[in-house]
Amino acid sequence: MDAIAWHDGALALLDQRLLPGESVTRRYTDCAGVADAIRDMVVRGAPAIGVTAAYGVVLAARQRYAESPAAWRERIEADLDRLTASRPTAVNLGWALDRMRGAIGAIPANIDPEPALLDAARTMHAEDVAANRRMGELGAALIESRCEVITHCNAGALATAGYGTALGVIRAAHAAGRIAHVFAGETRPWLQGARLTAWELVEAGIPVSLIADGAAAWAMRQGRVRWVIVGADRIAANGDVANKIGTCSLAVSARHHGVRFMVVAPTSTIDPGCASGADIPIEMRGEDELLSHAGARVAPAGAGAWNPVFDVTPAALIDALVTERGVVQAPDRERIAALLADG
Amino acid sequence: MDAIAWHDGALALLDQRLLPGESVTRRYTDCAGVADAIRDMVVRGAPAIGVTAAYGVVLAARQRYAESPAAWRERIEADLDRLTASRPTAVNLGWALDRMRGAIGAIPANIDPEPALLDAARTMHAEDVAANRRMGELGAALIESRCEVITHCNAGALATAGYGTALGVIRAAHAAGRIAHVFAGETRPWLQGARLTAWELVEAGIPVSLIADGAAAWAMRQGRVRWVIVGADRIAANGDVANKIGTCSLAVSARHHGVRFMVVAPTSTIDPGCASGADIPIEMRGEDELLSHAGARVAPAGAGAWNPVFDVTPAALIDALVTERGVVQAPDRERIAALLADG
Repeated sequence: MDAIAWHDGALALLDQRLLPGESVTRRYTDCAGVADAIRDMVVRGAPAIGVTAAYGVVLAARQRYAESPAAWRERIEADLDRLTASRPTAVNLGWALDRMRGAIGAIPANIDPEPALLDAARTMHAEDVAANRRMGELGAALIESRCEVITHCNAGALATAGYGTALGVIRAAHAAGRIAHVFAGETRPWLQGARLTAWELVEAGIPVSLIADGAAAWAMRQGRVRWVIVGADRIAANGDVANKIGTCSLAVSARHHGVRFMVVAPTSTIDPGCASGADIPIEMRGEDELLSHAGARVAPAGAGAWNPVFDVTPAALIDALVTERGVVQAPDRERIAALLADG
Repeated sequence: MDAIAWHDGALALLDQRLLPGESVTRRYTDCAGVADAIRDMVVRGAPAIGVTAAYGVVLAARQRYAESPAAWRERIEADLDRLTASRPTAVNLGWALDRMRGAIGAIPANIDPEPALLDAARTMHAEDVAANRRMGELGAALIESRCEVITHCNAGALATAGYGTALGVIRAAHAAGRIAHVFAGETRPWLQGARLTAWELVEAGIPVSLIADGAAAWAMRQGRVRWVIVGADRIAANGDVANKIGTCSLAVSARHHGVRFMVVAPTSTIDPGCASGADIPIEMRGEDELLSHAGARVAPAGAGAWNPVFDVTPAALIDALVTERGVVQAPDRERIAALLADG
């Protein structure tokens, strides 16, 4: 079951809000629908959002070219803006749209843009899967002996074009006999760990135990956890990492307990335009996600909620950043600049 | 609304599982029902469990004396054992039962034990409220200037005989103008923060924002939080503190971010029989508390869960232990022994 697929001229997205109870695939034939799907979290995970947006551009170009073969390039700008605004934190979204802008620029006048843009989107899709496989190998090689690991949120096949970033490393390391068992943080308030990561790991035959997010430090104190392995939504030029709320707490606990901390993300997640984590916009979502539970109000009237859905982990707490271009140990500004320059 | 009250010869407990949606008071006239109420979390919170168990002994004595005025002392041992086994982690339970055993021993032969035991239970009840008020004053005095604080789970009026331990300090410090705003961890999996602490703080007119448990480190990084203030279920002789799962993670994050960490608990929470936290039994609850959500299965079949409902925070991470006998700064074995000796 693919999270993202292109079939018969339409984008098919697995509705991740309904997993694992229901597997519903939704079909999109216009860009506005794709932007709404990203905003409403039908699809989530930074790399998956990027690839989805690329296919959204294909649908936008089809519509704009049908409206006006002469003016489609001007008109599609509104669609690109709409996709850009659909979620604020993941930089892969802007990165994917920039690549699609490049592809748009390369299309000759008076030519139907859909085939070329579809080709560009499919290339990005395939590259993301290949990058995940490569990161899986590189990250697994960092795990020296059979151990337990903690992951958070979902950085798996569902969050990417396939295979996964953090879960890609876990898949590869489990296959190599180096991971015995995974603790998955349930990941409040959306429970991506309980719903998505647990589902992917069960499907893959990898032993998984859900934990309350607050239990991670206590799990580390049991002595068998050697690594925390997570994905990223945006990485600043100095190596600070924005990822799902709760990641910073995991990194602090890992450092305190001598557990190592690995971030797995393609280089498209690195935003040289953000000097540090302070420049990364953090999405705040509605208070009701915490005040209510499964649709029923839990907290009393009069209580507020503070609901940032990402946080920033300082680079100093990260032992290894695994990208498709290689591993950056103890990432900092110079090492990340060197990684990007090598590409 | 009292969490625990004795009315017309029966124990009345506010069913905390239904708050804040419903306020249901349940009436208990036998000891078995009281033990079940503790086990099933009708009442929770270490000091509240102790006082509840004391009233359970009153009901047991009434029944056993009615059965046999000659043999009630032998027969009540089974009731004491049943109460002892109802929850494993909170030491106040054993402490309260030991005090009631002492009261039982002081009752002359062939005398109805109920009046003397009821008096003993009521004394413990009143002492707990007085201890909370005293701790509130002592803890509030540690907060030097107006700030924000984080609390976890519920260590309030509902968790005690009234007023609260951690929430007692927050009440007193808010009244003195030293606390501007409280972040309350929602406290998975039972959501005591969302359901109980938010309710108590709203009732008290203290501004409160719920946070996902994983968001606490990120809240600290915003720079306005100066203290984490929590209760305790059992404190070892060396100062290690067992409290709701997630507390250890908060303590690690607090130390990392220069935020101070205060534990507020009556001396009845200190267990000299536990040399260190490693000796404290940690209650494991069912996997379903994490695998399901509001009664509906969330995680996929095949996934497991690891559900310790308490953890141990090492004494080295605690800046102040506030008891009714005084404040222990940087608690360790010697300072705690001195505190107990002073009593």
